Amino acid sequence: MFPKNAWYVACTPAEIDDKPLGRKVCNEAIVFYRDADGAAVALEDFCPHRGAPLSLGRVIEGKLVCGYHGLEMGCDGRTVAMPGQRVRGFPAIRAYPVVERHGFVWVWPGEAALADPATIHACDWADNPDWAYGGGLFHIHCDYRLMIDNLMDLSHETYVHATSIGQKEIDETPTTTRTDGDAVTTSRFMDGVMPPPFWRLALRGNHLPDDQPVDRWQICHFSPPSHVLIEVGVALAGQGGYHAAPEVKASSIVVDFITPETETSIWYFWGMARNFNPRDKALTASIREGQGRIFSEDLEMLERQQRNLRAWPDRTLLKLNIDAGGVQARKVLDRLVAQERAGAAALQG
Amino acid sequence: MFPKNAWYVACTPAEIDDKPLGRKVCNEAIVFYRDADGAAVALEDFCPHRGAPLSLGRVIEGKLVCGYHGLEMGCDGRTVAMPGQRVRGFPAIRAYPVVERHGFVWVWPGEAALADPATIHACDWADNPDWAYGGGLFHIHCDYRLMIDNLMDLSHETYVHATSIGQKEIDETPTTTRTDGDAVTTSRFMDGVMPPPFWRLALRGNHLPDDQPVDRWQICHFSPPSHVLIEVGVALAGQGGYHAAPEVKASSIVVDFITPETETSIWYFWGMARNFNPRDKALTASIREGQGRIFSEDLEMLERQQRNLRAWPDRTLLKLNIDAGGVQARKVLDRLVAQERAGAAALQG
Amino acid sequence: MFPKNAWYVACTPAEIDDKPLGRKVCNEAIVFYRDADGAAVALEDFCPHRGAPLSLGRVIEGKLVCGYHGLEMGCDGRTVAMPGQRVRGFPAIRAYPVVERHGFVWVWPGEAALADPATIHACDWADNPDWAYGGGLFHIHCDYRLMIDNLMDLSHETYVHATSIGQKEIDETPTTTRTDGDAVTTSRFMDGVMPPPFWRLALRGNHLPDDQPVDRWQICHFSPPSHVLIEVGVALAGQGGYHAAPEVKASSIVVDFITPETETSIWYFWGMARNFNPRDKALTASIREGQGRIFSEDLEMLERQQRNLRAWPDRTLLKLNIDAGGVQARKVLDRLVAQERAGAAALQG
Repeated sequence: MFPKNAWYVACTPAEIDDKPLGRKVCNEAIVFYRDADGAAVALEDFCPHRGAPLSLGRVIEGKLVCGYHGLEMGCDGRTVAMPGQRVRGFPAIRAYPVVERHGFVWVWPGEAALADPATIHACDWADNPDWAYGGGLFHIHCDYRLMIDNLMDLSHETYVHATSIGQKEIDETPTTTRTDGDAVTTSRFMDGVMPPPFWRLALRGNHLPDDQPVDRWQICHFSPPSHVLIEVGVALAGQGGYHAAPEVKASSIVVDFITPETETSIWYFWGMARNFNPRDKALTASIREGQGRIFSEDLEMLERQQRNLRAWPDRTLLKLNIDAGGVQARKVLDRLVAQERAGAAALQG
Repeated sequence: MFPKNAWYVACTPAEIDDKPLGRKVCNEAIVFYRDADGAAVALEDFCPHRGAPLSLGRVIEGKLVCGYHGLEMGCDGRTVAMPGQRVRGFPAIRAYPVVERHGFVWVWPGEAALADPATIHACDWADNPDWAYGGGLFHIHCDYRLMIDNLMDLSHETYVHATSIGQKEIDETPTTTRTDGDAVTTSRFMDGVMPPPFWRLALRGNHLPDDQPVDRWQICHFSPPSHVLIEVGVALAGQGGYHAAPEVKASSIVVDFITPETETSIWYFWGMARNFNPRDKALTASIREGQGRIFSEDLEMLERQQRNLRAWPDRTLLKLNIDAGGVQARKVLDRLVAQERAGAAALQG
Repeated sequence: MFPKNAWYVACTPAEIDDKPLGRKVCNEAIVFYRDADGAAVALEDFCPHRGAPLSLGRVIEGKLVCGYHGLEMGCDGRTVAMPGQRVRGFPAIRAYPVVERHGFVWVWPGEAALADPATIHACDWADNPDWAYGGGLFHIHCDYRLMIDNLMDLSHETYVHATSIGQKEIDETPTTTRTDGDAVTTSRFMDGVMPPPFWRLALRGNHLPDDQPVDRWQICHFSPPSHVLIEVGVALAGQGGYHAAPEVKASSIVVDFITPETETSIWYFWGMARNFNPRDKALTASIREGQGRIFSEDLEMLERQQRNLRAWPDRTLLKLNIDAGGVQARKVLDRLVAQERAGAAALQG
């Protein structure tokens, strides 16, 4: 259950620089590569000759050459050539709309006619010299909505991430959740707390003292299909918090692009964009390493939760105030999927 | 197919000393831990908040704290507290009757109202200074009844355990099987045989010569749901055999508590209780190591037998005289399960 | 979908020299071993006593002794003896026709009455001092027909085996396919080409120059159920090619016996028979090693192709001229399986 008429992050640009990449997105087995101009291409990962995966082939002068019998596939899914064959009558394979933007390759696994690159999520921090970005990719065996729940309710930090970003005050501070069209926002503001280890690192990275009380904030922004961008930060206490001057705070955006692979597995692109010390590559690396370690702590919990939910399919989960972000996000997704189905039915109809 | 209204060994006490233990018993996913008084607790391994496995959490002052969002679970399956929440309306999870006794933690996976700790299997050797016990745990992919068959027909020792406890005379000596209520006993007495390697070790451990003929016995006691305790021993030949004086024999009880995990997998708690040299810890360790090695020889056979039976579901197995112990045990189990189902139907009825 | 009334290679002789071998052929779980005279025996891998796999047992004086309780099985599937038991009434297990010939053990998984050893594939190179043979065995997760396709269309060499036997001229040279009864032959002749690395090795092995143009040929012979023998070779250019004198060529037979394990997995016995320098064991070893490396390059492609075909079951594959060998072979197989089913239906009346 996921919208297919949507832009999902398929991979990072570097993943297709040297050879084709086979990756399943929303149950579609897709091969990604670059054409002669370096532009990203996304096709069904199925050679029309004998069904070999095209992702086992090579890219030669921008044409994807099947690794089994040398069929040359064009960027539109039509066979260009094959040794000793006339290929005009070969059946085409499906081409997916694909765009490289903001440091990611985005794919539209649904109806191609509806794909509008203008609707790709805006990322102001990308391609912006005042910002630095570092991130990674995890493959996790869970429904993508469990990851959205996880990110829209950061009270789990106290327990799952106790030694890095968790602190008791997260639990003690209530959140506010607001839905605006398809966007859902959950906010939490903790004033006058001591910064936990990860934020002490960030304060030092921004040349600020790390042993004084801070005002800390977490503002989680969900937008369809499955993007969660979280404004996080700390400011020296009493200087305005979220609105404090850049000199007295360390803030950043936690970037989460969640791409369903199947109903119960995801490609999870995580990262952090920051607008302090953007040229400090060592800082980028150490933040990235710390975040990777922290986020990997969620994997077992999410996979075991998924297995539990599958074992007890009839059990209803609680929807507490802390769960409001995930609950609202699911409502948006339910609506979008219903619209998509109604649209498909009308077209057939 | 197994009785659920029965006491099964769930784990050893040490397994829950430091942290919660998640273990499936008779298809029930259960978390075991100790309350504030150190008493064992058994609950469904499912957090009522969002379905996380509670066994991934921690025990703090006898309360099980979910590792995802900090829900505090009580020993009765009712939520005690959760940060920022009123928990009175939270749905309870199931609590299972559980008792620590005889060096094991016992659980009753069926109807709690029927659980009577007085019916836990008596183990005279436990908590008795004249006896020593050593044992271990194996996880095996087979129907628990295949393990009962294995233990009630020791003629397999000649083939599976040829180099330790097997000897040709086992095959040549007929057995007697007797059923008394729910108890099944299969006995074999071999007089004037040479002791095989394992028994030579035991004779030496009891300061007896290991190079002389002995009278050897094996008395297998099955009792529901799946306990097999085997009186085994050797006495210097002609001194009364099973009834010989302690000074001229080495005897012990092979302890087998078989706990179904699913229909086709088990937790197998094996061990040996002996009443000679009980304070000799090195002897306990060497017997335990030898027994572990011997019992591991059965694993592949049982798992491959299970796969064969699944591949040929319609084939009828032979029921020879040597199989009588297992056959009678299955009759007892069939009767108990039928009673259990009739009881459940009457209750619903 | 495979003929069962056919001789398949089950194993090499050495595989049953020391102990019984359990191997599934055409969905039949079979145990292979040698009787008292050293002759190969093939029986159902199922002990009639309690269903243990007989392949876990031992062979004692030509009798297969079950490793669980010592049942002694005879070569005809009838129990010979069991300690303490009268075995006359024991149900027999199935015995399969089996013949050791040409350096292989052949089994007939279908109706035993139809098995005629005279129909085992003739291998003139076997047991012939003018020839040398080296080969190996791979276990691959694909339909056996995908492997037949692979071997009847060598145009894949250009892509899969680019660094060893592949060369551009393979693609550029059309093939001829001919069907004669149940036999299918696909031929390709490439004149005046430079030999690729594997053939340079073979030329040197036959004391010929490796840096001159050659005439190269590939003649693929399919015969049921799933044998593909390929005459391959190179001759110094202009000396008659396939018909050139032995002194100016290096030629051999690629031997492929493909045995279905299940519908989607195979035991693939591959090798090469050559009639030059047959006594040079180092050459045999280096050819065998090279061929093993080359053939292992096909494994991932075939297994991923199989998974693709399973994911898109309704998609029709192309049948190009280069695919004619595989297409014709499938027609033969379809006919044989239909005949087999008609025969079985007629018998059942």
